[in-house]
Amino acid sequence: MCRFLAYEGEPILIETLVTAPSHSLIHQSMHASEGKTETNGDGFGVGWYGERSTPGLYREVRPAWSDENLRSIAAQVRSRLFFAHVRAATGTPTSRANCHPFAQGRFLFMHNGQIGGWPRMRRRVEAMIPDALYAARTGTTDSEAIFLAALGRGLEHDPVAALYETFSEIAGMMGAEGITEALRFTATLTDGETLWAFRWSTDARPPSLYYKTMPGGLLLVSEPIDGVRGNWQSVPAGGTLVCRPGRELELLGAPECVRAA
Amino acid sequence: MCRFLAYEGEPILIETLVTAPSHSLIHQSMHASEGKTETNGDGFGVGWYGERSTPGLYREVRPAWSDENLRSIAAQVRSRLFFAHVRAATGTPTSRANCHPFAQGRFLFMHNGQIGGWPRMRRRVEAMIPDALYAARTGTTDSEAIFLAALGRGLEHDPVAALYETFSEIAGMMGAEGITEALRFTATLTDGETLWAFRWSTDARPPSLYYKTMPGGLLLVSEPIDGVRGNWQSVPAGGTLVCRPGRELELLGAPECVRAA
Amino acid sequence: MCRFLAYEGEPILIETLVTAPSHSLIHQSMHASEGKTETNGDGFGVGWYGERSTPGLYREVRPAWSDENLRSIAAQVRSRLFFAHVRAATGTPTSRANCHPFAQGRFLFMHNGQIGGWPRMRRRVEAMIPDALYAARTGTTDSEAIFLAALGRGLEHDPVAALYETFSEIAGMMGAEGITEALRFTATLTDGETLWAFRWSTDARPPSLYYKTMPGGLLLVSEPIDGVRGNWQSVPAGGTLVCRPGRELELLGAPECVRAA
Amino acid sequence: MCRFLAYEGEPILIETLVTAPSHSLIHQSMHASEGKTETNGDGFGVGWYGERSTPGLYREVRPAWSDENLRSIAAQVRSRLFFAHVRAATGTPTSRANCHPFAQGRFLFMHNGQIGGWPRMRRRVEAMIPDALYAARTGTTDSEAIFLAALGRGLEHDPVAALYETFSEIAGMMGAEGITEALRFTATLTDGETLWAFRWSTDARPPSLYYKTMPGGLLLVSEPIDGVRGNWQSVPAGGTLVCRPGRELELLGAPECVRAA
Repeated sequence: MCRFLAYEGEPILIETLVTAPSHSLIHQSMHASEGKTETNGDGFGVGWYGERSTPGLYREVRPAWSDENLRSIAAQVRSRLFFAHVRAATGTPTSRANCHPFAQGRFLFMHNGQIGGWPRMRRRVEAMIPDALYAARTGTTDSEAIFLAALGRGLEHDPVAALYETFSEIAGMMGAEGITEALRFTATLTDGETLWAFRWSTDARPPSLYYKTMPGGLLLVSEPIDGVRGNWQSVPAGGTLVCRPGRELELLGAPECVRAA
Repeated sequence: MCRFLAYEGEPILIETLVTAPSHSLIHQSMHASEGKTETNGDGFGVGWYGERSTPGLYREVRPAWSDENLRSIAAQVRSRLFFAHVRAATGTPTSRANCHPFAQGRFLFMHNGQIGGWPRMRRRVEAMIPDALYAARTGTTDSEAIFLAALGRGLEHDPVAALYETFSEIAGMMGAEGITEALRFTATLTDGETLWAFRWSTDARPPSLYYKTMPGGLLLVSEPIDGVRGNWQSVPAGGTLVCRPGRELELLGAPECVRAA
Repeated sequence: MCRFLAYEGEPILIETLVTAPSHSLIHQSMHASEGKTETNGDGFGVGWYGERSTPGLYREVRPAWSDENLRSIAAQVRSRLFFAHVRAATGTPTSRANCHPFAQGRFLFMHNGQIGGWPRMRRRVEAMIPDALYAARTGTTDSEAIFLAALGRGLEHDPVAALYETFSEIAGMMGAEGITEALRFTATLTDGETLWAFRWSTDARPPSLYYKTMPGGLLLVSEPIDGVRGNWQSVPAGGTLVCRPGRELELLGAPECVRAA
Repeated sequence: MCRFLAYEGEPILIETLVTAPSHSLIHQSMHASEGKTETNGDGFGVGWYGERSTPGLYREVRPAWSDENLRSIAAQVRSRLFFAHVRAATGTPTSRANCHPFAQGRFLFMHNGQIGGWPRMRRRVEAMIPDALYAARTGTTDSEAIFLAALGRGLEHDPVAALYETFSEIAGMMGAEGITEALRFTATLTDGETLWAFRWSTDARPPSLYYKTMPGGLLLVSEPIDGVRGNWQSVPAGGTLVCRPGRELELLGAPECVRAA
C-alpha cells in the first residue's frame, strides 16, 4: 500500500505539491491516514516532464522524509506534468528498480495496489511482457510487470483498452490458479500529454484515489494533501479518469470484470 | 527519540532479541509504542563483542525493517554482549556516522535522548572532545559528542563519574546559554565486560528504560520487546544500573543535577 | 569481469584474506591486475558459514574499498568456509540483489564470467528456473539465473552434472540464437561442506582462477592476493576442482562442450 | 584527488558536458588520466542554478559511473551555471555530506586539493567557522571547512580576498604545527552570477585546472573532457580566474603566500 500524487497543468515547482503542503506526500511517507500501512518508507520516486518527450526520474531506496536530494530537486524543478510516489513494500526488496514511477519511452506509470498471490503469479505475468521489452524489466514488482505487459498489449495506442486487457488477463489467471486475494489497480499513466487515472479492483476495495481540478491544473492523490477531504472528489471504484490538456475531464465507467462503486 | 536494546549474558544469536520477538526492535523501528515518534526509520546499528576486545559494528542508513543484511547478520552472529539501535533523527542528517552504537577502542555506547538546543550547543560540546579523539568525530550528533567528551573526562577509568561530569558540564553550559529545553540522557555503555545503563535528565522525563534479568543474562530495552510491561522493571528516573558479570546487579541513585524519580 | 576469493579450512577471521593482504580483494576492487576491468566498484558481497547450515550474507552497493561495515565484519567473523566477491557490472544495475555471492538454502554460489548476449538470452535462461525457486529470483544477473537454473537440474545432488547440464543447455540456446560471444563460467559453489570450483568457457578464455593449498586450508582466487603468481597454481581451462574436507583435492577434466586448456 | 567541471554560459543540458563527451566527468570517475588516483568512486555531486537564486544539489555516495539518477537528471536539467564533481576520498568517510559541491545561500563551491595533515589541522580550521554557520558543517572534509571559514571572512563581499585570507591563515597554522605537506587549493566558486576559479598551492604542484572559452560560455575542468589537451588552456599555478557574465575573462596573479607558476 503506497501513496502517490500526479499533477498536470500550469508548470509549477514540484515542491509546491510534494514537500510544502501540510499533509504533503513527504508527510504521508511517515504518517499516511487512509492506507493500510501508515509508514511508506521503502523508497520513493519522482518523475517529471520538462523539455524532452521522455521523463526525468529520481528514485531512491531511503525514506522520502529524510532525503536531502528530493527536497532540493523538488525545489528546483518546474514541471507541467509530474508523478511522485512513496512506497510501502509488500514482500519485494527495497531497491531503486522497485521504486515507482516507472518510465518507458515517453510513458510514465505508477501504481498503488497489488496482484494477489504475487509470488505464485509473477512468472505468468512476466511471461506477458513482450520480448522487446524484457530487458526493461529491472525490478521484481507486480507494478512494473503490469506496465510492461500492457505496453505489449497496445498501451501506446489505446492505454485504457491495453490496461484493461492486461487487468482481465491477470484476473483470469488468478482465478485459474485459485487465488482468492483481489487484484487491485489504482494507478496513473501518462504519455507526456494525456493523463489517465485508474481505480480498478476485482473486489470492492480499490485503494483510494482523489482528484481536484484547480485553476490551470488537475491534481490526483492517494489521500488529500491538505488534510481536508471536502476539498476533493473521489474517483469512483471502477472508474477511469482521462485528462487531455484543453479538454473536459472525462470519467469512464467500470469495465466488465472490474467491480463498480 | 530512538529505540534501543542491550544484552549481556550467555552467548545468544543476536536475532533472538533483535528480530524474532513479537515486539522486537525491528518491529519497533516501524511501530514503537512509548516514544514520541512511532517510526524509527532513520538508520540503525548493531554492535557486538566476539573474540576480540574491540566490538564489531554494522550501521546502515536504511530503515532496519527492510534490511536483508541486518537479518542475515543477526541470524549468524552469536554474542555474549551486544547493542542494537534504531534511529529517529532529530535534525541531523541520516548517515552511517550518525547511527548508533558508537565504538571507540573497546568501548561501545548508544543513546536515546538529546541535548536541548543542540544547534546552539554543538560547538561548545565539540570543544569538550580531547584533541587525541577529535579525528574520531565522524558524525554530527549530540550523542557521539557526549561519548567522545566523556572519554576525555576519564570514561575509561570511571565511566559513571566521567559521564556525570560531562552531563553536568553540558547542563551548565545550556543554562548559561539560556536554553530551557532539557538535557535527556538514556544510554548504555560497555567496555566489553561491565555494562552500564543511565536514565538521566534535567527534567522529569528521561526516555524510558526497562530491564529484565533472565537466567544467564540481563536485557535492557527502550520498551518491552514482548509487549508485556509487567515482565519488566523500569530503571528509575535519575538511576544508573551497573551489571558486572558474576556480580549482583547494582542500582545507583541520581547524581546531583539529575532529576530523580 | 569481477574478482573473487573462496576459502575452506581451519576457521580464520575473514579479514586475514579479504582485507589484510598486500593485494587483497579490497585492493583488487580498485586495482585489479588480470581482469579486463581494473575497477570492481559496482558493489560487493561476503558469504560465510558459522554454526548454522545456511550461510550468512553481507552485500552492499558501494565499492568494497570504502565500506566500514565490511572492514568491521571481516575483522570479527571467524569462519571455516567463506566467499567474497567484488563486482564490475556488465550492463545490469548496481543493486544488492545483483551482488554475489548468492545463497539458497545451504548453498552459496558466486561467478565471474558472462552469458554472451545476455539481454537476448535472459528470458530463456530465466525460463530454466523451476517454479519453486522463481520467487528467489530477486535480481537480474545472468549469474543468479544460472545458479537457480542449476538448482532445478539437480544441483543439490550432483552439482558438477547439474551445472554442466545448465552450461551446455545455455550454450546450445546461444548457438540457436546465433550469438557468437562466449559463455564464460568461472565460479565457486559450496553446500557448506564440499567446495567446487569451475573454470569453464565455450572459448579459450575462461576468466582466471588460481588456488593454493595451505596448511589446513584451500584458497581460490581470481588473482593472487599476495601479488606473487609463483605461489599459486592455475585451475586449467575447462577444469573443475573439488575440495572435500579430509580428502585429497580432486581435479576433474573438461566436460564435452567446454574448451579445455 | 578529485575531478570536477564547472560551466557558465548559454543554458545547456547538464549531460552535454557531464555524461556525453568521450572523456566526460563520468568517464573520469573511473578512468582519470592526470590525477594521482585514477578512480574517483567515492561519491559525486552536481549543483546547478535554475530560476532560483539558490542552487539545486544532487549528491550521492555511489560511484557516478553507475548512477541512473545522475544520468536522468543530467539529461533533463538545463542550466546556465553548474558544477559537477567526482570524489576520491583522502581519509574521510564516504557520505553525502562529504560530497562536493557545497551550497550555502546563493553560493556553490567545490574543491580538489587538500589541507596537509588534515587530522591534526581539522579542529583549528573548524574553529575558523563562524558561529552562525557552524550548524551548516554537516560533513568532515577539509573542503567544506575552508568554504565555511571563508564565508566568515567576507566571502559574500570579496571572495578572492576572503579565500586568500583563509588560505594564508591555514598555511600559517600548518607551519606553526610543523606540517610539511602542502596546502593545495584548486577550486571553483560562484554566487550564481560570477564564477571564480582558483589554482593555489603552497608548493609547486597545485592540482590541474584547464579552461576553454566557447561561443557563449566558459568551461573549467580538472582534465580535458575531450581528451585533447591542445584545445584547452591551463590556469597557471597561483592564478585566479574571474568570469563575470558580459565581461572579459580576468586572470589574477598569485597572492603572496601562494606559489606562482
